[in-house]
Amino acid sequence: MASDVKHFRCEIRNRVATIALNRPERKNPLTFDSYAELRDWFRDLVYSEEVDAVVFASNGGNFSSGGDVHDIIGPLTRMKMKELLLFTRMTGDLVKAIVNCGKPVIAAVDGICVGAGAIIAMAADLRIATPQAKCAFLFTRVGLAGCDMGACAILPRIIGQGRTAELLYTGRSMTADEGLSWGFYNAVVDPSELDATTQSLADRIVAGPNFAHMMTKTMLAQEWSMSIEQAIEAEAQAQAICMQTGDFERAYKAFVAKEKPVFEGD
Amino acid sequence: MASDVKHFRCEIRNRVATIALNRPERKNPLTFDSYAELRDWFRDLVYSEEVDAVVFASNGGNFSSGGDVHDIIGPLTRMKMKELLLFTRMTGDLVKAIVNCGKPVIAAVDGICVGAGAIIAMAADLRIATPQAKCAFLFTRVGLAGCDMGACAILPRIIGQGRTAELLYTGRSMTADEGLSWGFYNAVVDPSELDATTQSLADRIVAGPNFAHMMTKTMLAQEWSMSIEQAIEAEAQAQAICMQTGDFERAYKAFVAKEKPVFEGD
Amino acid sequence: MASDVKHFRCEIRNRVATIALNRPERKNPLTFDSYAELRDWFRDLVYSEEVDAVVFASNGGNFSSGGDVHDIIGPLTRMKMKELLLFTRMTGDLVKAIVNCGKPVIAAVDGICVGAGAIIAMAADLRIATPQAKCAFLFTRVGLAGCDMGACAILPRIIGQGRTAELLYTGRSMTADEGLSWGFYNAVVDPSELDATTQSLADRIVAGPNFAHMMTKTMLAQEWSMSIEQAIEAEAQAQAICMQTGDFERAYKAFVAKEKPVFEGD
Repeated sequence: MASDVKHFRCEIRNRVATIALNRPERKNPLTFDSYAELRDWFRDLVYSEEVDAVVFASNGGNFSSGGDVHDIIGPLTRMKMKELLLFTRMTGDLVKAIVNCGKPVIAAVDGICVGAGAIIAMAADLRIATPQAKCAFLFTRVGLAGCDMGACAILPRIIGQGRTAELLYTGRSMTADEGLSWGFYNAVVDPSELDATTQSLADRIVAGPNFAHMMTKTMLAQEWSMSIEQAIEAEAQAQAICMQTGDFERAYKAFVAKEKPVFEGD
Repeated sequence: MASDVKHFRCEIRNRVATIALNRPERKNPLTFDSYAELRDWFRDLVYSEEVDAVVFASNGGNFSSGGDVHDIIGPLTRMKMKELLLFTRMTGDLVKAIVNCGKPVIAAVDGICVGAGAIIAMAADLRIATPQAKCAFLFTRVGLAGCDMGACAILPRIIGQGRTAELLYTGRSMTADEGLSWGFYNAVVDPSELDATTQSLADRIVAGPNFAHMMTKTMLAQEWSMSIEQAIEAEAQAQAICMQTGDFERAYKAFVAKEKPVFEGD
Repeated sequence: MASDVKHFRCEIRNRVATIALNRPERKNPLTFDSYAELRDWFRDLVYSEEVDAVVFASNGGNFSSGGDVHDIIGPLTRMKMKELLLFTRMTGDLVKAIVNCGKPVIAAVDGICVGAGAIIAMAADLRIATPQAKCAFLFTRVGLAGCDMGACAILPRIIGQGRTAELLYTGRSMTADEGLSWGFYNAVVDPSELDATTQSLADRIVAGPNFAHMMTKTMLAQEWSMSIEQAIEAEAQAQAICMQTGDFERAYKAFVAKEKPVFEGD
């Protein structure tokens, strides 16, 4: 079911959904349709029993060129506020859907990764890049502000406030080296190894415990603006829930038996 | 108008205001007067039509030695709580004014940058330093706490909580190398290139879109303590506003015409 | 009084309390008893007049192996929700007690530092490690979520959101090199120098001003989820309080007399 999509590619194997934008000849721009379908797909993912992690892959050597200038930017310049707000809320809803989907998302970033493409990579939990990755929050280049789809809130928590300010004011590309040393990328690998590395990380994650991973993802977003005391209480509740799962008992029994635990996700 | 100041230097050229403390023979200490005038100047900047970015420069090889020991620390030791709170609120108001002025601020940090001087650099959006930059949050050395003018809230978001704790408890200098690798500085350049590098960055920023830059600056501060959902909604609104600017349309038309956009700030 | 403990080691010298878990033959696991006693000890520390900083040391080449599998994990798998929540709240209360104890805490991390051990290191203000330090938030390995004892809130503020996500989803070890470059460790030193380096840092801190250090620690936690404006006002009040201490006056007089200040903590 989750793989029945029109405006992007989706393949599900071994509990990992691998998706990618599918216009490689134009470096994978987003359109109104792909935005909306991605948003709906990530929203449905919450309830999916067949997918436990997502790889958002590059396609044809590029991740995404962002909102298509002809398909999106042009029409936006002619819209009234009511329509504009519908659009910016839809794009923001995609980020919310990624953040709230309950499954770890790994972005595999090769080549161009700009505008809304950079935002999608930012909204993922983990990011693996190649040395060719060029990630730019280039909204300023099209006359817009850096505060797009959550960038002013999310990017500082990944790479810090000072580096974020530079990227958002100038719109310049972050190199793969910078991204790695700043904590944007978790690793940088050769393009020939990008898919294998990302799939291997996804496989490691879907080995479970997947109910617990869902809780980790939930709390990483949920505690964002809590006080330390509130966050600690929230985690006491979340972890107590996890202690009633079968996976917790499976891990203990495996340890006692000196075996590797096999998690079942409940 | 904005360049008519008494207690610091101010020069406006090409929509960039370059300011600096002006007692280089004493490494540019702050006084009650310069604190107050800087606060007022940054507050007025919100409404300025002639300035779109600020360079807070070093002077005579140093950024600032902070609150003058004789002019400020001495009198403070003899004040009652009511007066003390007036003073700490005035210094805090300077940081608020920098954060809320709506124009990107770049600190050009050479030599000594300590105490309230370090705070001003921290409150800027971007920081360029020289290898000679010695930045110290040395409040502890004068018997005070590290929680001065917002340091315990702002510094962790730039360099992380652990490094912040070390700098605030020990009062030790952060070297230029540390500052660069920790994300405090955006770049470190030779002293002979400090002014040119900083002005060039400011020129790049004031090329616009300046209304959008104002919105980026606003949201970088505004979303600080929001939840992810609140931040994304706030950005949907902020960006929709920017989509009604002429600069957004100018960028689109320039793109279609394969030209470089010329932004006009509205 | 503070050194009269049963389930961990505690030695107080020169206003520095050095504590360590005391089952080195098993790499210092935590038990129900040591959790509870540590929580109570850090809670009482708020009122201690004899201790101004804490070193949480390694013992026998390891920091801590976390919650004991036989003493803790086993019983947890058989508990009902009411008991589970009592346990997760008790462990969370230990972190709250460390964060709120009012005295800087330095973790000296050698060898194994995993699970609740990693959390204790994370909850400290400063961390010094050896190249042998292996720090893993390995809750996922025992079928649990990464949201344990505040990890999803505290760790991102130290090392950033992306690196945190990787450590929490995979449970993998953070090497000493990673920890240093990510800002988790303040320094990495040879094992033969770990105690001397940590004690020297503690000595430097307890040289004072200790009332001010208490205020720095308080505000580093307190401002966590405040807006910038709220944080700046909170610091204006906190620093005004510090300006009425004798230590502030002592520092000023020492400066005028060209002497080194001797702080007295009030």
